[in-house]
Amino acid sequence: MDTAVILCAGLAKRMQGYTQYLPKPLIRVAGREILYRTIKLLDSKGISKFVLVVNEHNREPIENFVRRLGISYEIVLNEHPEKENGYSLYLARNHVNGRFVLTMGDHLYSEEFIEEALKGEGLIVDELALYTDRKEATKVLCKEGKIEKIGKDLKNFNGYDTGFFILDESVFETAERLVKEREKVTLSEIVKEAHIKCTPVSGKFWTDVDTPEDIERAKKALVRASVKGTGDGFISRHLNRKVSLWFSERLVDKLTPNRATWLTFFIGVFSALVALLSPALGGLLYQLSSMLDGIDGEIARASMRTTRFGGYLDSVLDRYTDFLFLSSLALWLKPSQEFLPWVLLAIFGSLMVSYSTERFRGAYCEDAYGVVKELRWLPGKRDERIFFIMLFCLFGWIKALFILLALVTNVRVILTLWLVWKHRGSV
Amino acid sequence: MDTAVILCAGLAKRMQGYTQYLPKPLIRVAGREILYRTIKLLDSKGISKFVLVVNEHNREPIENFVRRLGISYEIVLNEHPEKENGYSLYLARNHVNGRFVLTMGDHLYSEEFIEEALKGEGLIVDELALYTDRKEATKVLCKEGKIEKIGKDLKNFNGYDTGFFILDESVFETAERLVKEREKVTLSEIVKEAHIKCTPVSGKFWTDVDTPEDIERAKKALVRASVKGTGDGFISRHLNRKVSLWFSERLVDKLTPNRATWLTFFIGVFSALVALLSPALGGLLYQLSSMLDGIDGEIARASMRTTRFGGYLDSVLDRYTDFLFLSSLALWLKPSQEFLPWVLLAIFGSLMVSYSTERFRGAYCEDAYGVVKELRWLPGKRDERIFFIMLFCLFGWIKALFILLALVTNVRVILTLWLVWKHRGSV
Repeated sequence: MDTAVILCAGLAKRMQGYTQYLPKPLIRVAGREILYRTIKLLDSKGISKFVLVVNEHNREPIENFVRRLGISYEIVLNEHPEKENGYSLYLARNHVNGRFVLTMGDHLYSEEFIEEALKGEGLIVDELALYTDRKEATKVLCKEGKIEKIGKDLKNFNGYDTGFFILDESVFETAERLVKEREKVTLSEIVKEAHIKCTPVSGKFWTDVDTPEDIERAKKALVRASVKGTGDGFISRHLNRKVSLWFSERLVDKLTPNRATWLTFFIGVFSALVALLSPALGGLLYQLSSMLDGIDGEIARASMRTTRFGGYLDSVLDRYTDFLFLSSLALWLKPSQEFLPWVLLAIFGSLMVSYSTERFRGAYCEDAYGVVKELRWLPGKRDERIFFIMLFCLFGWIKALFILLALVTNVRVILTLWLVWKHRGSV
Repeated sequence: MDTAVILCAGLAKRMQGYTQYLPKPLIRVAGREILYRTIKLLDSKGISKFVLVVNEHNREPIENFVRRLGISYEIVLNEHPEKENGYSLYLARNHVNGRFVLTMGDHLYSEEFIEEALKGEGLIVDELALYTDRKEATKVLCKEGKIEKIGKDLKNFNGYDTGFFILDESVFETAERLVKEREKVTLSEIVKEAHIKCTPVSGKFWTDVDTPEDIERAKKALVRASVKGTGDGFISRHLNRKVSLWFSERLVDKLTPNRATWLTFFIGVFSALVALLSPALGGLLYQLSSMLDGIDGEIARASMRTTRFGGYLDSVLDRYTDFLFLSSLALWLKPSQEFLPWVLLAIFGSLMVSYSTERFRGAYCEDAYGVVKELRWLPGKRDERIFFIMLFCLFGWIKALFILLALVTNVRVILTLWLVWKHRGSV
């Protein structure tokens, strides 16, 4: 199966304000066009040819857009979009061979959804439809793996139409017959007449985009789905992520990930400068930078803009932020010669927590938190360190802070070494 | 091609002292049995079945040995090893199908050799034979890609017999005819009669092991071939490697890589303790630990014992050594509050040189020095830092040392960031 047919010939009646100049498949949701997401995700799963059915209004912008994606595509013009989307499918009949994917240009899917859906057959049906407007969605009644009924106003149904199909050429026989019989043919009609199979895929993110409200909801869902979180500590899970997600939802369309990285870095550097004068105020700013630290990754993943350089830059800058802040505290403290070893051990240990975790990826090409699961529960991660640094700064316990950091971080490194040694056979 | 025939039925006349109890294929060279190397290297290149032709003296130990390797094997007993190795090959005739590898149980090959050889056909011929006793080696005259003459005392020849062949079943016709005609049949006779093809592979490490001197020479060659060196700085290439190789050649049979790692670490920690009292003496010991730092990797690669944990452990311990030594210097210096930033920046920067390089592998799963080649020429690598630390310690310029380190290391990190950014498209 190497071809996907994407229906983009719809007239988008309910999106007047948004789509006056822009066809619906080209609307950006969380920083990326709907069509970009669908094509790039399918492309990454092995689909190599895209057949786009368009209408005469959106043909030019859509063709200009897909040309720049560097994929193999064919454009099919539907000169009668009023004949509905079943007619659009029918027009694609000479562009596919064997099994193919059929999907909608105004539907958004997550990677997890597409992965699951590609294993299925017929219509992919979602029993839960957690992320879409269920009232407006098309309902489906599946019986014994085949579609029995389909329609918006079904009373008795057991799933929702996700707009994602795995079909084969045989569907075109039914399509042809209906097109010859009727003025208008919807996909639902073809699906019902052809008694195509259905495959349940539940709970994964997908949604159709019919109204401006759908866009807002989808944007938030995409940002929230972007949290990786395997390396998140307690503070991150319960505090920092909440703050960073609040910002990411609002900034995902407006800020590039690398700019978010630099912005957070500058707040961190500023917090270190402030700490020279007031550890308490500096500590608060440092915790602020820690809460914002997730934004770059969230925006990058939600807008499909992750780069390996971005992750690399973020890591190196985080190390400088941590170093500068603790150095400022040390300069503020003016440590005696006897206390200097604690300062050095605290600064070094804080860095080594990251080094020992990230050097694992260097050695094993796998995420340390994925392989050595105990690391997730070991205290001393960056989010936790910064939160406690802030607390100790607020209380003015700078000496105690250095002693605590020196101990916790270096013990964590030793435990990391031991845990990696224990798991050395499992990677 | 999935089968290799390994001839192990030779009588090893010239190895009396060594092989009284141990068959020649089981002699350890640089910490690994000859047979282990051949089998594991071929296995890693896709050979999945091994046919071992043995004699009645070495059958038991060889079978016990290969059983523990976890590979698929068949044992063929040659009850008349005095009939020479051509007869041994003949005995393997019912154990192979189609193309197969033929090689000798007393020959050592490097991975590079085997990679090249597997692409060839017929006898693999080395025009240079850099690593073997050329006087004792079998010479070959190849003409138009086929063997014309072969023998130890050839005057007119253009290569050496590496004992490595890519053959097919047709060779057994010649073997059968000769076995029926003659008392003894050498492989050379079969090769000559069958006019098999020859493929030149020159300059890669291989050797036969006939005498104790061959073992010594092979051991040294294997250790020297084990230097990766892409991350080596100037001092490492011209000084440290020479020292570590001298030790590795002598210790490769006696020391495990992880023990070498710990030993070097303890010398490093000891150098830090000494530096508290005498930076000059500490500096000398620190440079000693730096010169010995290559041993673990050299032994590991030469004895086919590299593990990802070994590389991981070595990296983390190196960071602790560097931290402890510079911290000792700082404690010896008793820096003023004004000078403290230089101390902190020097310690942090030294660590960040490694972090910024190794985090690259974490992000890109590739060696930074392989992708960002400019990094090789950037000063500030560990071997260079330690050498200069020793020099400055000898002269007593500790303050100047911290300032220099603070500048060089942090500038290097910034340049690394910039270079990685420049190369971000090429990985």
